[in-house]
Amino acid sequence: MIIVLRAHTSDADRDHIVEKIHAMGLQSMVSQGVERTIIGVIGEEDLERMQPFEVMAGVEKVIPVLAPYKLVSREFKPGDSLIKVGREVIGAKRVMVMAGPCAIESLEGLREIAAAVKQAGATILRGGAFKPRTSPYSFQGLGEAGLKIMKQVGAEFGLTTVTEVIDPRDLELVSRYVDMIQIGARNMQNFNLLKEVGICKKPVLLKRGMMSTIKELLMSAEYILKEGNFDVVLCERGIRTFEDYTRNTLDINAIPAIKKLSHLPVVVDPSHGTGKWGLVIPVSRAAVAAGCDGLLVEVHTRPEEAVSDGIQSLNAENFRRLMDELRPVAAAVGREI
Amino acid sequence: MIIVLRAHTSDADRDHIVEKIHAMGLQSMVSQGVERTIIGVIGEEDLERMQPFEVMAGVEKVIPVLAPYKLVSREFKPGDSLIKVGREVIGAKRVMVMAGPCAIESLEGLREIAAAVKQAGATILRGGAFKPRTSPYSFQGLGEAGLKIMKQVGAEFGLTTVTEVIDPRDLELVSRYVDMIQIGARNMQNFNLLKEVGICKKPVLLKRGMMSTIKELLMSAEYILKEGNFDVVLCERGIRTFEDYTRNTLDINAIPAIKKLSHLPVVVDPSHGTGKWGLVIPVSRAAVAAGCDGLLVEVHTRPEEAVSDGIQSLNAENFRRLMDELRPVAAAVGREI
Amino acid sequence: MIIVLRAHTSDADRDHIVEKIHAMGLQSMVSQGVERTIIGVIGEEDLERMQPFEVMAGVEKVIPVLAPYKLVSREFKPGDSLIKVGREVIGAKRVMVMAGPCAIESLEGLREIAAAVKQAGATILRGGAFKPRTSPYSFQGLGEAGLKIMKQVGAEFGLTTVTEVIDPRDLELVSRYVDMIQIGARNMQNFNLLKEVGICKKPVLLKRGMMSTIKELLMSAEYILKEGNFDVVLCERGIRTFEDYTRNTLDINAIPAIKKLSHLPVVVDPSHGTGKWGLVIPVSRAAVAAGCDGLLVEVHTRPEEAVSDGIQSLNAENFRRLMDELRPVAAAVGREI
Amino acid sequence: MIIVLRAHTSDADRDHIVEKIHAMGLQSMVSQGVERTIIGVIGEEDLERMQPFEVMAGVEKVIPVLAPYKLVSREFKPGDSLIKVGREVIGAKRVMVMAGPCAIESLEGLREIAAAVKQAGATILRGGAFKPRTSPYSFQGLGEAGLKIMKQVGAEFGLTTVTEVIDPRDLELVSRYVDMIQIGARNMQNFNLLKEVGICKKPVLLKRGMMSTIKELLMSAEYILKEGNFDVVLCERGIRTFEDYTRNTLDINAIPAIKKLSHLPVVVDPSHGTGKWGLVIPVSRAAVAAGCDGLLVEVHTRPEEAVSDGIQSLNAENFRRLMDELRPVAAAVGREI
Repeated sequence: MIIVLRAHTSDADRDHIVEKIHAMGLQSMVSQGVERTIIGVIGEEDLERMQPFEVMAGVEKVIPVLAPYKLVSREFKPGDSLIKVGREVIGAKRVMVMAGPCAIESLEGLREIAAAVKQAGATILRGGAFKPRTSPYSFQGLGEAGLKIMKQVGAEFGLTTVTEVIDPRDLELVSRYVDMIQIGARNMQNFNLLKEVGICKKPVLLKRGMMSTIKELLMSAEYILKEGNFDVVLCERGIRTFEDYTRNTLDINAIPAIKKLSHLPVVVDPSHGTGKWGLVIPVSRAAVAAGCDGLLVEVHTRPEEAVSDGIQSLNAENFRRLMDELRPVAAAVGREI
Repeated sequence: MIIVLRAHTSDADRDHIVEKIHAMGLQSMVSQGVERTIIGVIGEEDLERMQPFEVMAGVEKVIPVLAPYKLVSREFKPGDSLIKVGREVIGAKRVMVMAGPCAIESLEGLREIAAAVKQAGATILRGGAFKPRTSPYSFQGLGEAGLKIMKQVGAEFGLTTVTEVIDPRDLELVSRYVDMIQIGARNMQNFNLLKEVGICKKPVLLKRGMMSTIKELLMSAEYILKEGNFDVVLCERGIRTFEDYTRNTLDINAIPAIKKLSHLPVVVDPSHGTGKWGLVIPVSRAAVAAGCDGLLVEVHTRPEEAVSDGIQSLNAENFRRLMDELRPVAAAVGREI
Repeated sequence: MIIVLRAHTSDADRDHIVEKIHAMGLQSMVSQGVERTIIGVIGEEDLERMQPFEVMAGVEKVIPVLAPYKLVSREFKPGDSLIKVGREVIGAKRVMVMAGPCAIESLEGLREIAAAVKQAGATILRGGAFKPRTSPYSFQGLGEAGLKIMKQVGAEFGLTTVTEVIDPRDLELVSRYVDMIQIGARNMQNFNLLKEVGICKKPVLLKRGMMSTIKELLMSAEYILKEGNFDVVLCERGIRTFEDYTRNTLDINAIPAIKKLSHLPVVVDPSHGTGKWGLVIPVSRAAVAAGCDGLLVEVHTRPEEAVSDGIQSLNAENFRRLMDELRPVAAAVGREI
Repeated sequence: MIIVLRAHTSDADRDHIVEKIHAMGLQSMVSQGVERTIIGVIGEEDLERMQPFEVMAGVEKVIPVLAPYKLVSREFKPGDSLIKVGREVIGAKRVMVMAGPCAIESLEGLREIAAAVKQAGATILRGGAFKPRTSPYSFQGLGEAGLKIMKQVGAEFGLTTVTEVIDPRDLELVSRYVDMIQIGARNMQNFNLLKEVGICKKPVLLKRGMMSTIKELLMSAEYILKEGNFDVVLCERGIRTFEDYTRNTLDINAIPAIKKLSHLPVVVDPSHGTGKWGLVIPVSRAAVAAGCDGLLVEVHTRPEEAVSDGIQSLNAENFRRLMDELRPVAAAVGREI
């Protein structure tokens, strides 16, 4: 940690800060510059963070040196993590495609969709049973009935399954039915939920909040790893910006950036990342080319009748086209699909 | 709802859309323009929202006409709502100042702060027992022990109390100890938590998410009112922007905007809205001048020792100065403090 | 400047960086921490900026210590600058209200508006002759004819005048007709234009870009001061965010923030800052309460007929109401209007 | 254009609006809904835009139906435009790579860089002679001396050339030396400059402003086409968001979005789009996979000595690696490099 003092800070103020540092069991190193004095604080940075040096007289700003996360960092684990989920592994050579409807609507409907995505090459079935909806008047999901449908359809088609949990009280229930727990963008900083999926033994798909930085995403993953669950897959799903032609702005930079900072796999959700089914295919190609480990794609065989987010869902034919277009791109970057 | 068709949409596609509208029990009105055909859909707009017209062949875009919230709107209730909280009323002539530490740290500490804010004129004591912290390594709050301290100190000083709930499982517990439940910015779209505070009979302080529009804030409030709890106070606390000199950008426009759209009172949190104690006083004056019904201010009598957010807390002397400066501003806009 | 090295950087890489520092005539101070080595660079920070240390092997990041602006800073000039503009002074006790139409449309029109704003208490007349318009099909301003109208009307009503320049080739022309040159938000980083108004002897009203940080605004002002023109007034006019109910988000924090960082006066444009005339009055009250030195308000006596931005213009009656409401607020913060 | 009236608008107000519409030579269509009356305005939408209907009594909002641009739209020209630049064509099967230094520093330096990029497969040489720099204390470019160097080096290596113009007064000069004129992000809404490059006969590379929507980028291109110059290439170079790990957030969605809305070619600048050379290669692969027509890449053979933006420049070896990695990706999407 580096403490920059204001110009003309008194010696007394400087000494008071240095004493505080020493009283915390840390070391200091004072460097007198031409226009500013800076104090390097040496020791355990967590300890340093406990003290709000910014409020002390004479302090202009405090600059942390280390990233605030540990277990998720490349420094902690230089090699890539491979996450086993049901029958599949995320983070290996094969780019995993998770596909399915926004919300599970019926057994027959999910069967039809599962058949279509399986046939086109997807390996993981996604679908929501508990839906976080902006409006209280929108469809909120089938709940446990939806989970049962998912379990049955997953088993029938040999598809690994993933669904979202939005309430810690549902976690045990959901764990019984699916292979992977999704934490949605709106819950990325629901820290109690993070702790509980950290304790739970299921792999976790953690989506980036729509207004969260990469660093904050990694801090949220740190909550899960800290509880002992290292099976975390990160998901870039677009951030909120001023651009309003698309629903979100997919942050393509985040893929190589996260790969550099962390050992965890990264998947991309082009459906929420664009909000328009017409953009999903080219943006998915881009995500694979940038090095993502998987895709999370909304598919609905009858998008006209979808009860939510039909506007960003691919139909069966377009999903097939997506998979066909992804194969050569994956090969071009040394991956397969 | 208005449906705009693409140029050169076929008559068949247009007719198919119109049939769909009629099949839903709605009426249509087709208007043939110079370059575009538009279809007005007449009926219950909630019903209209169920159907993803955007995915139908020939549709360029769908434009909703009505706001998606009802109970919170000025149209539903033209007069201002007055919310009774403990001994106080929010939304009346008096601008309510809620003050206290970010986190409750100890009985003695909270007593010292309560004495200071009470003496300067605050009427509601704030303080966190359950803290949502970005890092798992940061102080997470005292939990129930903190609630007990708050109840005792509130009673001792005759101060109404407010504290945050971050987990639906803690709601009953917290309700036993304090007068008002705060939903923090990170939980503004924790819809299950919203439903539960909607069922609970305590008044609610709902903070705007740092990534949420005014419309989304109103939709979240709608969740609470829909469950029967109309005692909701909205809180502007700054949004996330590209500006990095301040922690957030306080959206001063939101105050008159919300007043125009809704009957609910609006308070402002200048501590999070700026993230720098040195900006809290002028920004608080601005909030009162813009017409807010209250302020939520972080105060710590020993900010150097605060375990969280000391950097944005006023000390006792500065809080007194804040109150002194606010009085003439409140009077200038026909309010008191 | 502080250079943070990566973990496990070799001694050779570290020494190479230190040699580079010394070769530039600067001093270094190496501090070996628990997890990182940091190098403090001591000397003229401008010189340091010339060298892209970030690209050298072993460097994790480079952290500047000093703000990159000088002449505009409070450190350079601790007292507030008073800027003389025509008959008026900006930055003194009186909050200056600059009012007028978005675009000058006709002699009669501007006369009617000037009469209204003068009578209500404005002292500076604003109005555009050269309009930067997003669409090439929109009205682009009257050009020199507009300037002539402005000069005539200003003289007739005893009003100081301000208008925008968008092209360096028009600067001399505009200087002949008005008292103050406005640099619009879209030209805040038109550096050649900044240099030329720096050479020119007229006072300058520099508007913040809609996606510029406070620091960038100060850097742009630095361009003008560096050329010898210290008569610069800064203008906060709202920044672009994800919030779409308003045209921009007025950054109220920027007022006290700029006051802290710089000696230059700050005025606020609530018309662009909100984009809705119905929000202009409360937001103007807020700006004055926060400590601004003036307001730039769009007024049109016949907003229904305004050729641009009628939607955010106050009519004569509302402008009078604005002035009436501002007086007690100004008094409450020790100012007058 | 659609006008939505407030609830309970009087018949008189409604009729007044309808009269206004008719007085403008337009037609109206009134649709009485359950909760709102809407008025469809039929006629030339440009004409409609002239009138600020929003300020009329009873109007809640005004919704335009048509995009405000014409000549740049796919509706105007359904096929892709091919833009001839020097020896090359942008928009055809071959993805064009434009590479070179941020700023031209010396004849020898540019020669060395040109040799490297030519050898790796780039076809267009980029480099700045007039640099828009945030700080007045930074290197501002060599001016005409730089242009001469560029012309000589381009001729020597058989490379087509592109450089930025920041001042309309330099346009003629620059046109004499290079094959393509670049309008930088900060000048995307410098409308006078746009008009002049519209009159000039050189092809134009128009960069998206860091604060501009896709629609605004298209409107700026419209300025150029409207003057008769249809040789415009659009460039996505990242937008400003809250994410601060990268310099900008490259908007990958913009590539297919622009392709859908416009017939103009789109190239991508991954150097500014990321601000970190370590991210340039994966993000470039993504851009090609998404369907871009070219790349604009900063290359410096001695980035440690670059006078500007060395931190985001590839060195010769990494540029070669970039080209090697792009070839299979281009092939995977039916292109070549």
